[in-house]
Parts: sequence; C-alpha cells; structure tokens
Amino acid sequence: MKVSVIVIGDELLLGQVVDTNSGEIARHIAPYGWEVNDVQAVGDDASEIRRAIDRAFELSDVVLTTGGLGPTKDDITKSVLRDYFGGELKEDAEVMANVMDVVGRRGFKINKLTAAQAIVPTSCRVIQNRVGTAPIMWFEKDGKVLVAMPGVPFETREMFQSEVFPQLRRKFNSDVDIEHAVLMVTDYTESGLAEKIAPWEEALPDYLHLAYLPKPGLIRLRIDGVHRDKDFISGEVRRAASELLDMLGDAVIATEDLTPAQILLNQCRQKGLSLATAESCTGGNIAHELTLVPGSSDVFVGSVVSYSNEVKMSLLGVNSRTLDENGAVSIPVVKEMAVGVLRATGAKVAVATSGIAGPGGGSEDKPVGTVCMAVAMTVDGNTEVFAESRHFPGNRGRVIDASTTRALIDAIKLVRSI
Amino acid sequence: MKVSVIVIGDELLLGQVVDTNSGEIARHIAPYGWEVNDVQAVGDDASEIRRAIDRAFELSDVVLTTGGLGPTKDDITKSVLRDYFGGELKEDAEVMANVMDVVGRRGFKINKLTAAQAIVPTSCRVIQNRVGTAPIMWFEKDGKVLVAMPGVPFETREMFQSEVFPQLRRKFNSDVDIEHAVLMVTDYTESGLAEKIAPWEEALPDYLHLAYLPKPGLIRLRIDGVHRDKDFISGEVRRAASELLDMLGDAVIATEDLTPAQILLNQCRQKGLSLATAESCTGGNIAHELTLVPGSSDVFVGSVVSYSNEVKMSLLGVNSRTLDENGAVSIPVVKEMAVGVLRATGAKVAVATSGIAGPGGGSEDKPVGTVCMAVAMTVDGNTEVFAESRHFPGNRGRVIDASTTRALIDAIKLVRSI
Repeated sequence: MKVSVIVIGDELLLGQVVDTNSGEIARHIAPYGWEVNDVQAVGDDASEIRRAIDRAFELSDVVLTTGGLGPTKDDITKSVLRDYFGGELKEDAEVMANVMDVVGRRGFKINKLTAAQAIVPTSCRVIQNRVGTAPIMWFEKDGKVLVAMPGVPFETREMFQSEVFPQLRRKFNSDVDIEHAVLMVTDYTESGLAEKIAPWEEALPDYLHLAYLPKPGLIRLRIDGVHRDKDFISGEVRRAASELLDMLGDAVIATEDLTPAQILLNQCRQKGLSLATAESCTGGNIAHELTLVPGSSDVFVGSVVSYSNEVKMSLLGVNSRTLDENGAVSIPVVKEMAVGVLRATGAKVAVATSGIAGPGGGSEDKPVGTVCMAVAMTVDGNTEVFAESRHFPGNRGRVIDASTTRALIDAIKLVRSI
Repeated sequence: MKVSVIVIGDELLLGQVVDTNSGEIARHIAPYGWEVNDVQAVGDDASEIRRAIDRAFELSDVVLTTGGLGPTKDDITKSVLRDYFGGELKEDAEVMANVMDVVGRRGFKINKLTAAQAIVPTSCRVIQNRVGTAPIMWFEKDGKVLVAMPGVPFETREMFQSEVFPQLRRKFNSDVDIEHAVLMVTDYTESGLAEKIAPWEEALPDYLHLAYLPKPGLIRLRIDGVHRDKDFISGEVRRAASELLDMLGDAVIATEDLTPAQILLNQCRQKGLSLATAESCTGGNIAHELTLVPGSSDVFVGSVVSYSNEVKMSLLGVNSRTLDENGAVSIPVVKEMAVGVLRATGAKVAVATSGIAGPGGGSEDKPVGTVCMAVAMTVDGNTEVFAESRHFPGNRGRVIDASTTRALIDAIKLVRSI
C-alpha cells in the first residue's frame, strides 16, 4: 500500500523546525509492507495545500497530513479541508469534552482559542486525540482516504500508531509481506564496503534490495525483501544476512538496528558489567546517548564531564604532570580519565574522550577534529585500557557526534573481547 | 526568489534518516529574502525524480536537489539528470583531482566506485565539492537553474553556503528585503500566548507576519517583515518587537533566536560566573546542550552525571539520609546535588535534575514524567538555591528534552536576577 505524506506549516519551509513525522510514519508502516511514496512539505497557504492534496491523491490511496491544526491564526488546514471535502464547520460535543479533559490534565484553563479546536468539518469522522487538543480528522473520497493529524511529533506518533494506522489497516488489506534484516558495519567507508560486496550485491534477486545508510563511523546495511509468500521471503532475507556476515566478520557489531549505545548497554548487561563515562570534548553526549535508552540505569552508573583541567584533576584524579607534559588532548590524559572514572564511580567499563571539537582551539600539531579516546575495563581485578587518536572532519556538532560513535564502538570491541 | 527543494533517497521515505538539508537551506536563504516554496522527498526512482523536477520547475526558478549522488548502486540521480538535461556522461579531470585530494586527506585509497564520482554529465557546470567526493552539478534550462548537491548534511551545508548560494545570488537579483525579529517566550502555552496578544496580532499590517514556533517549555515568536524599502521594514519589525516585549515582560528570556543553553552561557560570561551541572534523569543532556555551543569552555567547567545513588553520594556528597527519607526524585536531593556540584567543581552556578524519564520507574505518587530541578548560585560567598518539581508529558526522549529546557530556563531566571 502506497502512502503520500503532506507536512504542513510555514515553520517547515523556513527551516525553523525539522519534519520528523514523515519518518516516524514510514518506519512504523514498513514492517507491514506499506510504504511512503512521497513526502511534500508545504506552507500554511490554502492553494498550496489544495495542490498538494490533489497531487497526493494522484499517487496514493492513502494521504496523511500532519500539522497546521494548532489553535493560532496561522493554522488554516481545517478550513482548507472543509472546502476540499465539503460539509460545514461545526462544534463537536465529544471533541469539546476531550479538549477540556486534555487541557485540564495539563493544569491549564480552556480559552477561546483552545475551544475552537472542537469545531470540525461535518464531512469528516473524528478520531479523538488523547494526548493533545487538535482532533484527528478522517475524510474519504472515491475509496481513498485522507487523515489529518496534528504536527506535534509526540502527538502524531502516539495517535498514528495506536489509532490511525490500525484503522487504515482494517480498511485496506495489504497483500505483500516485507521482511528486513540490518547489519551494523564499522571500519569501512561506504565505497570501500560497496566495493567489497559488489559481486555479491550484483547477484541479488529482484525481490531483495540492499541499502547503505551511512552515519559517521558506522554504516547500517539494510536488506529488504518484498514478496507475497511470507515464509519464502523471510528465509531469503535471513540467508542474505548470513552471507554478508560471513563476508564482513568482525566489522559487523550488531545484526539488529540498534544504536552503538544500545549495543554496548546490551553487552554490558549480558556480562554483568557496570558502565561509566569521562568526557571532555563530547561534553556529556556519550552519557546522553546511553541514558536515552530505556532501562540504561541498571548498567550505566554515571559520568564525569571534565571540561576544565581542574575537574579532570579533582574528580578524575588526572595527574597535573600528565596534563602539563602532554596537554589535555593526549593519549596519556585520556587513559588516566578512563581509569579515573572507574575509580571514582566503581564501574567496570569506562569510555573517555578528550579532543578539539572546534571551531577554536586547534593547532598545527593537533588540528580541530583531533580526538583522543580511551576505553578501560576491569575484569578479575585487572584493568585493561585501549586508546586511540583520530581526526574527524566537519563542524563542532559533527566532531562531537562522530567521536561519540567511535568511542562507543571502541568500547563495544573491548567488551566483546571477553 | 522562490526555491523548490527535492530531497532524494529511499532512506528518507523509509524513515531511516531525517531530512535536515531543506531546513538548513531555508534558514540560510531567508535573511536574503529568498524562500523555500515547497519540499519534495522522493525515493531513488528515475520516474519519481523526473516527475519531482517537472513539478519543481513549474513552481520555482531555482530547484535544489540533495542526495542520491553517493558512490553506491542505489544512487541514480546523476543518470536521471543526464537524461533530463541531455549531454553525455564523461570523466572530468578536475573532479577526479578533487576526489583524489578529498579521499587522500581522509587517509583512504581511491577505489573504482569513488573514481566513478568523477564522471559527470557534459550538460552541467561542476562546482568542486571541497569536503566530499560527490561533485555539485549546476544545470540551466529556459533561464531556470537546477543545482544537484550531495545529501550528506555537512557537505550540503558547507558547499551551499560557501559556493552554491553566492553563485545563485549573483545570477538572480533579489528585489525585496526581508527583516525579522525573534522573541523567546516562556511561561505561556501556545494558545495562552495567542489569546494574550490576539488584539495586537489582528491589527498587524499586511507586510508583517507573526509565527508561533513552540518547543517544549518555550515558544519562539518570530516576526517577519517583507518590503521593498529596507529602512522602512527594518523600523517596522523593530517597533513590533518592542511592543511585544512591553506586553510580555519577564516571560521573554531573549530577543535573539538563541537556545536556552546559549542564553545561559552568555549571561554567565557577562557576569563572570562559571557553570556546572549535576544530572540524573537528563543523563548529561544539559551538559551536551551547553557544550554544543562553540566557546562554552570559558564558562562551563563540567558536570557530574549521577545516575546511581552511589555516585550521587560519592561525587556530589548527597546525604544518604536525604536519599532514604525523600527518595532520589525529590526537592531535597536535587538541591543537595546542585550545591554538591558547586563544591565539587568550584563553579558559581549549578543546574541539577532528578526525575523519572520512563517508561519504567513511575509510581502513583511520582508518575513517569515527574522531574525535580534545582539551580544554585554563589555570589559573594552566599549560595542561593531555587528548586521546583514539574510533570512533563510524553515519552522518555521528550521528558529529557523538556526538563533540560526547563532547568536551563530556571537557571536563566536566577542568573538574570542579580
């Protein structure tokens, strides 16, 4: 089943917010064999919205819109939909009860603008929005469906997954099965990996498709299989994944679509090892990546973000001589940081970073993008430390992201070794 | 000048990556009075790409594409463009030299796939990509321009800003001026704010437009003015901003489009105060937000991410009795964390959090989403502490984001008070 998505709002075209809704929708429907055919982003402009709906109905039987349903003056989607599908705008008592309930739970009082959320076109069927005030509207036309959803990402996700998509599934039966497998590959560039597996890739049958999804330091290799026979395609995808695994060996750090943080947490949990970080240039981002994972608290104990040299010495016990002789961005310092955070927190595995994220602070010897990373692990009273220095291209955010990923991968490899 | 953007790649429609390029482009061109008219996301499919280009040329004189130029088999944009604009595919010596240079700087060797990047349609003019291997291609047709850029966000940003946009500006003269002002507003809901300023907003002249850009805990209120007379519109936008400021008073925490982290760092820098964080449920995210800001190291000294109670006690000196009597998620504990990190790091301002980000860990008394936040500041030897407990809706990531923002706002208000 093909789906067209229209994301609505001037803020999208001004680049003030990033559309994550279309991606959420796509990821959720893919396992059911549904796919997003195209995404259009348009402003809060009646003729642009109408034109986008026309185009979407040309391509797809299901059209999903997000956004443009807020209580403020610039949101006009509701009246555009009334013009498009007919009917009139009328207050809906059930929606009003829901709006009052949602607003009340947030501890606010209802006002004129919020109350206007309860006015909906008579041509739609309403799906109550349990987590926000904008009602979800289901329109039908010539056997095709348009569902208008709010733009706030968590409302869209929650309501699309729990109500909208199940109802769409009931209406349109999907007749193909889609299966996929993912390998997380490190140590290769995209083109290096492509060259390595080229002969194999070229021999893939029509019903299997391979996609390269590079991130800094990591390539997600995704095999998609589409076929009417579920058992057949599931076997074929498994076979292809296992062939790739044979070819790539140790470079594959996971056979599930997990973040490096998830992989490391799973490994540590399995081996009963607690985890800490000591971060300078990554500034807490490794801890943040780890703690974004639900349940991380049974493995991750904490972190010291030692941005200043004073904190490196006072909280991590880094030797002042090591700092003076080597500078903060050096292998000896980052090793002492890793070992220091093991001591300070009692954790068994540590990840440490010290680098120059830029734009300032670079030198001939240590240009912006230079990052030293260390991982330390204590097993049976012995502490093993691995450290490396790398150079990452790009701006500050990219250096932080790339070194976060690489430091986590170094830890994954160290913990895997026991 | 109207611009249409086409973002290309199956990974976008599968929701495996999020398009940030169109937003980067929009934000960069807005100050010059250029605007993105629409964004289309299409897969790696020749007929879809052709159809999108047709549609884009209908709407705009400038079409920008990103993505689909990688070295792997699934990227087909280049051959589609050759078909569309004519000419033939031919190796370009200058591009080859550039590819070898870029690959060499990364410490890799060139392979067959990377070398293929140097093959370009003869119908385009190449703009050398200084930061990646995919060449940028400039096509013209009936006075309109299409520029094909790579999809890797940092390459697109770097090359669009330094080369592509300046060249587009030279070709098309813009004849209107755009001015804007931004107010960062807290303490209001979107509809509460809209109601408060409704009479004022309705009286705005045609050439001024107001947009509400809500984020958890914060609303960016943006005034855009478009007019041929630069001095006139600049005065009008300034006047509107100052009227809003009078109406909203203390709820405005900045009159520039800055993140809460940037605002707090600026305030601390101005007042000569160093800054630290002590984080439990935000897990390093506040430190990460702060250290994403270039130059943060002259204010921010570090952080203790005290995920476990042991680390709260050992590194922050939280009293075990305070923990036993109140639980980790409590006002007394988070106050001790804030004061503790001042002591541990020597900083003058501290932000601390302890909460239940979910999905597990909630109770009747303290449901998922409950977060206690404290800010502490030492001036002239006296330490002042402010703490509050709030409930944030949504999933784990949203609770972390919202409490990060709120804790930073609490600190902004405390530091502003002296």
